[in-house]
Amino acid sequence: MTFEYHCVECARRYAAEDELFYVCPVCSLSQESLSPVRGALRIMLPYTELSQKLDRYEFLPEDWLPFESDLIPEFPVGHTPCMIPERLRNYLDAPNLFLKDDSLNPTGSLKDRASLLLVAAAHKYHKDHLIIASNGNSASSLASLSAAAGLRCSVIVPASMPGAKLYQIMAYGAQVIRIDGNYDQAYDLSLTLSQQYGWMNGNSIYNPFAIEGKKTVAIEIFQQLDYHAPNIIFIPSGDGAILSSVYKGFFDLFQLDLIEEMPRLIAVQPEKSNALVRALRTQSLDPIENADTIADSLRVRVARNGIMAVKDIHRSCGMGMTVTDREILDAQQLLGSQVGLFVEPAAACALAGYLAMKSELIKNAMAVVLLTGSGLKDPEAFASTCTIPDAVEADPEIIAREIQIGHAG
Amino acid sequence: MTFEYHCVECARRYAAEDELFYVCPVCSLSQESLSPVRGALRIMLPYTELSQKLDRYEFLPEDWLPFESDLIPEFPVGHTPCMIPERLRNYLDAPNLFLKDDSLNPTGSLKDRASLLLVAAAHKYHKDHLIIASNGNSASSLASLSAAAGLRCSVIVPASMPGAKLYQIMAYGAQVIRIDGNYDQAYDLSLTLSQQYGWMNGNSIYNPFAIEGKKTVAIEIFQQLDYHAPNIIFIPSGDGAILSSVYKGFFDLFQLDLIEEMPRLIAVQPEKSNALVRALRTQSLDPIENADTIADSLRVRVARNGIMAVKDIHRSCGMGMTVTDREILDAQQLLGSQVGLFVEPAAACALAGYLAMKSELIKNAMAVVLLTGSGLKDPEAFASTCTIPDAVEADPEIIAREIQIGHAG
Repeated sequence: MTFEYHCVECARRYAAEDELFYVCPVCSLSQESLSPVRGALRIMLPYTELSQKLDRYEFLPEDWLPFESDLIPEFPVGHTPCMIPERLRNYLDAPNLFLKDDSLNPTGSLKDRASLLLVAAAHKYHKDHLIIASNGNSASSLASLSAAAGLRCSVIVPASMPGAKLYQIMAYGAQVIRIDGNYDQAYDLSLTLSQQYGWMNGNSIYNPFAIEGKKTVAIEIFQQLDYHAPNIIFIPSGDGAILSSVYKGFFDLFQLDLIEEMPRLIAVQPEKSNALVRALRTQSLDPIENADTIADSLRVRVARNGIMAVKDIHRSCGMGMTVTDREILDAQQLLGSQVGLFVEPAAACALAGYLAMKSELIKNAMAVVLLTGSGLKDPEAFASTCTIPDAVEADPEIIAREIQIGHAG
Repeated sequence: MTFEYHCVECARRYAAEDELFYVCPVCSLSQESLSPVRGALRIMLPYTELSQKLDRYEFLPEDWLPFESDLIPEFPVGHTPCMIPERLRNYLDAPNLFLKDDSLNPTGSLKDRASLLLVAAAHKYHKDHLIIASNGNSASSLASLSAAAGLRCSVIVPASMPGAKLYQIMAYGAQVIRIDGNYDQAYDLSLTLSQQYGWMNGNSIYNPFAIEGKKTVAIEIFQQLDYHAPNIIFIPSGDGAILSSVYKGFFDLFQLDLIEEMPRLIAVQPEKSNALVRALRTQSLDPIENADTIADSLRVRVARNGIMAVKDIHRSCGMGMTVTDREILDAQQLLGSQVGLFVEPAAACALAGYLAMKSELIKNAMAVVLLTGSGLKDPEAFASTCTIPDAVEADPEIIAREIQIGHAG
């Protein structure tokens, strides 16, 4: 499909689909280190052509991707459930709450949607090696899809990354390079290396095909809500890339006249990792001094996708909000005990935002909470919310008493 | 739907669907501790009635469950992909290999299929509290589905169970009781307590609805292979319950004349946790002295479902085989690097079995490898197969050299 790159800063368009662009050649000249991506590009589809052949009630989100299907590996990405959590609805008196559970992607996070299109882009632009900097889900996801597509993948990580995360990346056969440095340095190095050696840069805040891949989550929500946009969507946000991906999906639906109004996109951030919220309040996208939260996928000093995300929040009449780590962990527990879902703290952050804002919502507003990753990614994060009980004697009487106390308590 | 309980030992039938039976009242009289379940029951459906209203090319596996759908919670269990792993097929020269990836269930394992029906049974028989003994996936799965269904769940575990597994169980709001004792003691205690207090016993080797729930994986495979049974299925096996579940699914298909032949079911076991294989060879179902394997979901001293599983293996013209821990870890690595899937060692065990037997298979035999659980359940198990690289200086030249060395190596 013919597509164009569209700079979100200067609005220049580049009709150059045979060439790989990461950022706007003009705006990116003002790029500085430790600042958001300058000249971030959005992929613009041929909407007129698409709308002419569109079956409004029967289309696949995959049909709206910029690459032909033979470039996209067969892999069970997306098509995740949009759940109606009856018990939680009753518990909260929230009759129109939906949970989009993207933790059911193959590597346990929404990032698989990005990776699927990144490896397709690698095929398209004849790259056999991808490089990415990461301290979380995006690296294991790109490693998985690279394996599925038969491509090499190298991952630069801070030396502080814990073993369990490294094992997942290495299990997919990717090469891990641990550096004496932090994530921001890993990010800069990945840019230098991809420029110098021509490897494809797979950072999802720098490569425009990542957002284009993740947009499918929005299109699925629209279809799962019976071809309606919800009124409001709560999105766990660190650098703002997932928010812009959801925006892009609804943007496409809007361009194709399938919706009349954008849902309000709410960026929910941990209170001590709130770069986007601060940008909305103060216009400053400077790095945060001590970004800190239990939701490690949301722990960012720089909102790399900040320029695009702030625009997208405004355009959707959305807003930013913060929640505490305590609220995040409470929301995680609520999803476990009332829904039966174990999500990572970053995902619970979105529900925490919904809970904090619920009293201000119109009761029958259709609200979607986007759950971005599995709790299995980081079970230790749950440790702070529960006490492991002492071991007891293997005696039925004693155990029955424990159970009855537990029930009363 | 009207169903009967059918004893696999004495063939007595109990047409008593309004009553909860765990085991045959007659055969279970000879039950001893540390031995397989005596008088295990199979659920028999009204096949004549089912076949009369059957649409042979459009039915849902859920339509063959013994309970009405209003007893079954809405939860995204099953409907997992049956993958065509193109790269792995080429790599192995195995043109008819399929991977049924059940790690994509909500709690990351096939056990969710059992739990879904166990909570439906609890609703049916008016139980609001389930109890289970576990050292692995089945407890977190039952905890999740209990939360989804609004039921209490208590889990008895050996005190040695690691924290990460406990957190997953507790995240779903279940009560964990740690005992000074091993799994076999926990199992015995769960039986005593469920008898004494009337709580529903959720042990999937004791409650006949567990196997009945897990059978859907077989029906899905049949549908995904274009309404054909494969020739052979490799099943990771500990106590034999998953094997009997796959058998039951094909048994139903056979009863309904949808297949003419059962696929051969191959029980793949770790060499040092080989209770079933030993039973096939020696007729002895005595406990193993030191069951040990990296595949912790398959580490069992007693093949509790041994009596049923041995019959099912014979009836399907199947067999048992063992693989080493080394072969399991190699298979895990192969799935990661050639397919992009990170599965737990127990799941990789099935592929290891396929690899060991491949040279004896007819080349165009349709073979399915059943992947039962996610690698995220136990990332540390992968630690022994890889070396975490040393950290290097944050310098592009140095990193480029590392990458080039990594590629050459």
